[in-house]
Amino acid sequence: MNTTELIRKKRDGNSLDSGEIGYLIKNFTSGIIPDYQISALLMAILLKGMNTTETAALTSAMLNSGKILNLSSIKGSKIDKHSTGGVGDKTSLIIAPIVASTGIYVPMISGRGLGHTGGTLDKLESIPGFRIDLSLSESIKILKKCGALLIGQTKEIAPADKLMYALRDVTATVESIPLITASIMSKKLAEGINGLVLDIKTGNGAFMIRRKDSIELAESLVMTAKSFDKKVIAFITDMNQPLGNYIGNWLEVYESVQVLLGNIKNDLYSLSIKLAGAMIYLGKGANSLKDGEQIAKKQIENGKAFKKFLEIVELQGGNTDYINYPEKYPKPKYSKKLRSTNNGFIKEMNTYQIGMASLELGAGRRTKKDIIDHKAGIVIHKKIGDSVKKGELICELYSDSKIKTTDEMLINSFQISKEKPKKLKLIKKIIY
Amino acid sequence: MNTTELIRKKRDGNSLDSGEIGYLIKNFTSGIIPDYQISALLMAILLKGMNTTETAALTSAMLNSGKILNLSSIKGSKIDKHSTGGVGDKTSLIIAPIVASTGIYVPMISGRGLGHTGGTLDKLESIPGFRIDLSLSESIKILKKCGALLIGQTKEIAPADKLMYALRDVTATVESIPLITASIMSKKLAEGINGLVLDIKTGNGAFMIRRKDSIELAESLVMTAKSFDKKVIAFITDMNQPLGNYIGNWLEVYESVQVLLGNIKNDLYSLSIKLAGAMIYLGKGANSLKDGEQIAKKQIENGKAFKKFLEIVELQGGNTDYINYPEKYPKPKYSKKLRSTNNGFIKEMNTYQIGMASLELGAGRRTKKDIIDHKAGIVIHKKIGDSVKKGELICELYSDSKIKTTDEMLINSFQISKEKPKKLKLIKKIIY
Repeated sequence: MNTTELIRKKRDGNSLDSGEIGYLIKNFTSGIIPDYQISALLMAILLKGMNTTETAALTSAMLNSGKILNLSSIKGSKIDKHSTGGVGDKTSLIIAPIVASTGIYVPMISGRGLGHTGGTLDKLESIPGFRIDLSLSESIKILKKCGALLIGQTKEIAPADKLMYALRDVTATVESIPLITASIMSKKLAEGINGLVLDIKTGNGAFMIRRKDSIELAESLVMTAKSFDKKVIAFITDMNQPLGNYIGNWLEVYESVQVLLGNIKNDLYSLSIKLAGAMIYLGKGANSLKDGEQIAKKQIENGKAFKKFLEIVELQGGNTDYINYPEKYPKPKYSKKLRSTNNGFIKEMNTYQIGMASLELGAGRRTKKDIIDHKAGIVIHKKIGDSVKKGELICELYSDSKIKTTDEMLINSFQISKEKPKKLKLIKKIIY
Repeated sequence: MNTTELIRKKRDGNSLDSGEIGYLIKNFTSGIIPDYQISALLMAILLKGMNTTETAALTSAMLNSGKILNLSSIKGSKIDKHSTGGVGDKTSLIIAPIVASTGIYVPMISGRGLGHTGGTLDKLESIPGFRIDLSLSESIKILKKCGALLIGQTKEIAPADKLMYALRDVTATVESIPLITASIMSKKLAEGINGLVLDIKTGNGAFMIRRKDSIELAESLVMTAKSFDKKVIAFITDMNQPLGNYIGNWLEVYESVQVLLGNIKNDLYSLSIKLAGAMIYLGKGANSLKDGEQIAKKQIENGKAFKKFLEIVELQGGNTDYINYPEKYPKPKYSKKLRSTNNGFIKEMNTYQIGMASLELGAGRRTKKDIIDHKAGIVIHKKIGDSVKKGELICELYSDSKIKTTDEMLINSFQISKEKPKKLKLIKKIIY
């Protein structure tokens, strides 16, 4: 096969077959096909698209570039959840213990923060001692023991994805539905799961801002999962404001613990119940989505979900003291309160800007080398539809570094109107 | 400026400004921007296009990546011709001496054979001793002395083009009108010319097979030349059969000499007169295209064009003995005659196939390392519209290597019909 001819084929809008896609990915991963040919191919894919068969073949080739978690020794359903990411999106920390506490296995491989969004791994690492870099054999042991596993992508899993993502990042070829699909699915399928719940975010704090694009991605992911005989449900969910009220690594662990304890019943709680319910349903722990949700709620009420979270933290080396007594956690050096300058209602939020403000406070990385300030972040006191009075607290900022211009950046992120706006619908669409 | 953002801009179909294009080309040439970013950009340009302003900016950036021939010490018009290449296209060898013999300067930088087409440099090198690798200072001396110069692209001229072409070749990004335009024009403008005649080939032996594409390229080249204040005329000419009757390096020099001596008056002669006439007109040596053609014809009849050719060959180190006495040139070891198997008329030729057959005989290169057999090639005895009888000679093959399967490949390239087809129109369109 000739790489240039395959690039030409895609460039002209023709489909590549699975043999051709396999050849490209295999030889790219082994270094035989150079970066400059793959980047031209990636641009052709972005502009000309790929059909479902091609997307599945690409997913398969990327999956097979590395190892697959061998969970055959574990009887029972293995179900995971994937979110496309947003601001304050910490459902993984809540869902994994809820679902694992019902006897369904949750082998969850997560990522780091990217741009304005946080990452599950960074959040977990804010728990002193928590290890996300377990070996595959350690991982399987822990999963067997407690039913859940929260780790990072190892070098052994889908190495083609890592190489390709590095190229996509610098060649403006990130925003392609088939490339995003193959990237997500190759890593999720490497977990050896039976089913997957997808949380596709849409709105001004999501990577997919337009609802149309989110639906297209959801459909592509669902079709690809099905072509691998996996059970799958996708939720299109709102990201026009941060999810929950806490943004920043430790702050998000704190809020997750409060949800698991049943102390908080906000939008984060509602979405977590929806997603966990769907996982329980896919894992045959419930007869319907509704039943699944009821079970998820019950696992919070009876304390089993929180107990499971403590077990996970302990098995992965984390200090459970801070989970049991969050007040012991070190306090950030600096804080600042932002107050409303008007009377009215919160009408809109610039969620992207809020995520960037949190990054600026130290909760995220500007470059790969930056070290995260686990205590940094924002607590939001008002969400869309809430009434505010002049001088009333809108949000609080925390950081170990002096808080500079972030406050101005933030206050402009909240639009206040005289009329009460409609509340946002949390679940926009379900696709399966 | 951020390279990824510029790639994204082009990817989304937006225009890049001249500062942005300049930044990309400058930093690519100096090695700061890596190949993999430029290849993604090239694919985006191929699929999204570039407007005239962008194409001119790209041309300018590529031109300025290297040196420009400083011809300010030479008074008088400097006019060149560029052909997009075809089979048997040897007009440069005829035109340069015709035009130079009228007092107009012709600083011609040519290329090597590419695929099924021959290259002027390879043809010139079939003349023993002929040097195409002159330094810029030698070049100017010779141009001053005899009015014409036939050399290859030096490292100093448009290095960005060389780097970019190497990438385009392996990333399926050759066939882009703006990229082809900038590649051609950056090299031609580096010659320090006042005007340019373009010969855009169209047909089954050309790089642009469809007339529509050839016209689009011609218009792009004409607009770009005008944006640099150059006088320009483009001819769309037929390449549905080889030009003239000789294909192969020395064979083409031989035919050119015969045209210059006034011994051959075929389609090669007609086209050479048209193109030389246009150059004379652009160089103010005639009041109209028609007048220019008359002058060109006269320079052949009065022997001045042939004399000028001898002068060029001598000044560039070539042995003029072989030009004066072509019968002295060494004979190829093998030859083969192909005869018609039917009565009728030549209806069509697979010109690409004929070019490839000549390459197989040794007249071209399969890989960069191949050494050319200067005596190899094909002499065509019948062209489209000619009548043939069963057993009559269609063409003769020459090579220093044993002639293998080439004959079958060739005989299938000539389609014979019972009815007499229309003769092909040589000049399809003139754009200026």
